[in-house]
Amino acid sequence: MQAITIYLAGEIHSDWRSELERAVEGRGITARFVGPQTVHDRSDSVGEDILGEQPGPRYRDLMGAGINTLRTRILMRRADLAVAYFGEKYKQWNTAADAGAAVASGIPLLMVRDPGLTHALKEIDSMASATVETLEQAAEVIAYIFE
Amino acid sequence: MQAITIYLAGEIHSDWRSELERAVEGRGITARFVGPQTVHDRSDSVGEDILGEQPGPRYRDLMGAGINTLRTRILMRRADLAVAYFGEKYKQWNTAADAGAAVASGIPLLMVRDPGLTHALKEIDSMASATVETLEQAAEVIAYIFE
Amino acid sequence: MQAITIYLAGEIHSDWRSELERAVEGRGITARFVGPQTVHDRSDSVGEDILGEQPGPRYRDLMGAGINTLRTRILMRRADLAVAYFGEKYKQWNTAADAGAAVASGIPLLMVRDPGLTHALKEIDSMASATVETLEQAAEVIAYIFE
Amino acid sequence: MQAITIYLAGEIHSDWRSELERAVEGRGITARFVGPQTVHDRSDSVGEDILGEQPGPRYRDLMGAGINTLRTRILMRRADLAVAYFGEKYKQWNTAADAGAAVASGIPLLMVRDPGLTHALKEIDSMASATVETLEQAAEVIAYIFE
Amino acid sequence: MQAITIYLAGEIHSDWRSELERAVEGRGITARFVGPQTVHDRSDSVGEDILGEQPGPRYRDLMGAGINTLRTRILMRRADLAVAYFGEKYKQWNTAADAGAAVASGIPLLMVRDPGLTHALKEIDSMASATVETLEQAAEVIAYIFE
Amino acid sequence: MQAITIYLAGEIHSDWRSELERAVEGRGITARFVGPQTVHDRSDSVGEDILGEQPGPRYRDLMGAGINTLRTRILMRRADLAVAYFGEKYKQWNTAADAGAAVASGIPLLMVRDPGLTHALKEIDSMASATVETLEQAAEVIAYIFE
Amino acid sequence: MQAITIYLAGEIHSDWRSELERAVEGRGITARFVGPQTVHDRSDSVGEDILGEQPGPRYRDLMGAGINTLRTRILMRRADLAVAYFGEKYKQWNTAADAGAAVASGIPLLMVRDPGLTHALKEIDSMASATVETLEQAAEVIAYIFE
Amino acid sequence: MQAITIYLAGEIHSDWRSELERAVEGRGITARFVGPQTVHDRSDSVGEDILGEQPGPRYRDLMGAGINTLRTRILMRRADLAVAYFGEKYKQWNTAADAGAAVASGIPLLMVRDPGLTHALKEIDSMASATVETLEQAAEVIAYIFE
Repeated sequence: MQAITIYLAGEIHSDWRSELERAVEGRGITARFVGPQTVHDRSDSVGEDILGEQPGPRYRDLMGAGINTLRTRILMRRADLAVAYFGEKYKQWNTAADAGAAVASGIPLLMVRDPGLTHALKEIDSMASATVETLEQAAEVIAYIFE
Repeated sequence: MQAITIYLAGEIHSDWRSELERAVEGRGITARFVGPQTVHDRSDSVGEDILGEQPGPRYRDLMGAGINTLRTRILMRRADLAVAYFGEKYKQWNTAADAGAAVASGIPLLMVRDPGLTHALKEIDSMASATVETLEQAAEVIAYIFE
Repeated sequence: MQAITIYLAGEIHSDWRSELERAVEGRGITARFVGPQTVHDRSDSVGEDILGEQPGPRYRDLMGAGINTLRTRILMRRADLAVAYFGEKYKQWNTAADAGAAVASGIPLLMVRDPGLTHALKEIDSMASATVETLEQAAEVIAYIFE
Repeated sequence: MQAITIYLAGEIHSDWRSELERAVEGRGITARFVGPQTVHDRSDSVGEDILGEQPGPRYRDLMGAGINTLRTRILMRRADLAVAYFGEKYKQWNTAADAGAAVASGIPLLMVRDPGLTHALKEIDSMASATVETLEQAAEVIAYIFE
Repeated sequence: MQAITIYLAGEIHSDWRSELERAVEGRGITARFVGPQTVHDRSDSVGEDILGEQPGPRYRDLMGAGINTLRTRILMRRADLAVAYFGEKYKQWNTAADAGAAVASGIPLLMVRDPGLTHALKEIDSMASATVETLEQAAEVIAYIFE
Repeated sequence: MQAITIYLAGEIHSDWRSELERAVEGRGITARFVGPQTVHDRSDSVGEDILGEQPGPRYRDLMGAGINTLRTRILMRRADLAVAYFGEKYKQWNTAADAGAAVASGIPLLMVRDPGLTHALKEIDSMASATVETLEQAAEVIAYIFE
Repeated sequence: MQAITIYLAGEIHSDWRSELERAVEGRGITARFVGPQTVHDRSDSVGEDILGEQPGPRYRDLMGAGINTLRTRILMRRADLAVAYFGEKYKQWNTAADAGAAVASGIPLLMVRDPGLTHALKEIDSMASATVETLEQAAEVIAYIFE
Repeated sequence: MQAITIYLAGEIHSDWRSELERAVEGRGITARFVGPQTVHDRSDSVGEDILGEQPGPRYRDLMGAGINTLRTRILMRRADLAVAYFGEKYKQWNTAADAGAAVASGIPLLMVRDPGLTHALKEIDSMASATVETLEQAAEVIAYIFE
């Protein structure tokens, strides 16, 4: 079966990616999942981990963000599909930015969002090719690509 | 003086766009400002205003969002610069999606964000060419393009 | 007011374009409308009109189609918006091909279609940014871009 | 032998794809064939299959179409060649839209159409690199790529 | 009337460009015609005219060609249409290279060629949107864009 | 060793491609060579071979050219490098068109031309990244990519 | 006469831009000249001028560079031609980076460099469409575009 | 593990590439490293090595540079990441040009530069996704892509 590279945009506080990956693989689909660093503390500290202490939080954040952006843009560039996952918690501005970037780059977008967020996400819903409500449904849609 | 088309991404609850436009024009810059519909109720109702009543909020939102997305993508396509404005209130997922889309489309991004949002916006800060803290500073940066 | 170039894809048997143009201009919008040759007989004969008689209908069609395609692709290339109009009559394969081409080229698509065609046009509806049912609604959407 | 990815655009009521695939493979060509969902009922129902019942046919169609479009655009994106197959039956607007999209995306197009459709398809014929009349001829053209 | 920028690719020994320009303008079309340097001796000498004597014909040619290519690519980049004119005399490799470049850049191509060159130019004919035999016919096609 | 896909543009009357392929492979480079149909009679007849007799040479040529163009554009699209080979004989307009198309598509061009053609090919020389005089030198340049 | 937008890449310590602008305008060419901030101190201080004092030179530089990059990329994006000027003094890494960026973006490049820098600039020379030695020669080349 | 293609831009006088490659591979990352010819004398002589003696240093340089550019552009085109390494010695204009080209082509850039060059490289720092100070740090960032 043909492999597909899927970029997973979403918060890095919960384990939603593992849930989706299991559901997709459980359907016999060979997929390569890529996305941002999911260990939250590491994502925040990588700038200082590599470059050393910075003179304050703004610069600490900036150095780390550059490294995180390097990672995500390298990985997103080769994706066949982007999945954007939105939940009720967390700002999720990176998720939204990644979603907009994917669509603008010609990468089809599948949005997963809790129905309670319908109104807030109506525009991104419109940009996406399809929107579902659960990770299980997302896995069904992904499997459908090859059905 | 050469005109510039500036796409203004941001929440549509406050009047920040007028503030920025006045500051830019006050510096003698000729700019065409474009962006989403800023009358919030109209932005929400335009789908039903034009297409008639829909069978529920999800569909009401979807019909309107399609029309709003048609507008924003037509206008963003010709922009020379995108300004993304973030404040402490509102979800601002559209702002983030527009920011990501602009950068992915090769349109340089200028982010305006309150310092309190430094950490949450570190990745978008990294994608942007420049980040400032106030609309006044944004107007200074825009004027600098032609200095 | 800023002008907009609108490519009008649709059958060339009825006068729907004039109807839309009047409705748009009636709302105070400055638009340049472009599209295929609308005089049906001329569209069919232009190949032989210019190149002389061809050895049969297939070649007569091919020579004319090349000239018509030259025209439509030159005009579509500079469009800000594509409108695809579908009615109950005619094959409208050119309309659908133009619609697919516009979306693939990054030109936002507004589809106008009779509700009776909902099922047949569901995929193009999905590719479009927005879908309306009448030319009057289409004019409202176009005016909304500048509201 | 080098593999080629071929996107097959066309109606999903008959088994024409299998016929073409057999003819191509019979010539010793290694090809990966992709395209829309070919089980017609599943193509229509997938929206409700995954997302649950919708409030009417328009919304039922829209939810399914989004998922179908996600599939086709992911698959078309990596294609080396698009084949558009037209017959006398069915609206085939998706076929035409896919054909226009492929050409606009720089994917060469091979059209297969019954001679009786010469006049109706003259413009798409003009956009295509080549046009043939039968699936057997299409397989010959595909094999010729590697001859 | 809307202006159109037309890149004229072809030999620089005869005055065919003036002929086409007169025919186009005679039809009331406002066009900006661009193309390579048409004064043949100047085209050959411009390298040494500007940079001084070079150590032999190969280098004399190379210095001039760089300047000529700078010119043609700047001008072709903004063209709406490319016309490639082929006659019985001259190598016309630049004409063919410009024709291939235009098509690859998404600029529609109109080829003008004497019928005696049908066989030699069959592939470029295939890449072009349309092919005619005389400059008069070319002017008719160009006028048809706006009819 | 990494493979490279090389598109070979040039006349199809002599066996220059085999000479280059041997020279490249003799240097231990793994390359996939693609290009137009090299059996001249087949290149001319393929249209009628597949589609049946046409009403005259112009149409015979056109039908075959479409199939040949489908082949070359599919193959060129994935090339890492284009080699354009020019000799003293034959019109070689396809060679020049392929050269211009490759450069315009961002595919680096290596030109091989007899020194006697220096003046006629000065512009294409300027568009190419490098120009050599023999196939042996071309093979050296190709091997140099991996040195 | 048609205007041209020219991006001037080069050091900001001398007044070479004024010299070139006068030479170009003296030849009757209407050009819009754009480029980086030429007041060196302002280029270095703009970050702190707008954003306030930063915690050290690295961050002072970074904040200013973001604003300078915003400016240059907005202006370069609409250029028809890039001129890269190299002299014996200064690091000129920005000049080289702008030159590489212009070529990669499809903007033709004209390099101006002192003959003493021939060896060091041989690769950028190769990427440029043309290379000259003085600003006077550059103005001649620019005028030649419209000759 | 997924392989990554990394283009290494930088001077060809020291052995920094080997140092980076060892550091990256030591972290278990499978990478394909590409870049310019690193044997300095060969890089300078390749033009005359292949094409024979040229009439002077400018032409010797030009012939070689064309071959070197052919190599680097073929290799950079398929890169996932570009690393630009700057040190205190050497002009490094090729490094800067490659850095600008990579960013303009959508290839994420990681810059490695000695802190003493902070001021001179502030603009390229701004264009890069991330900047580090040592090759060891660069290897850490590269490994982080897959963490």
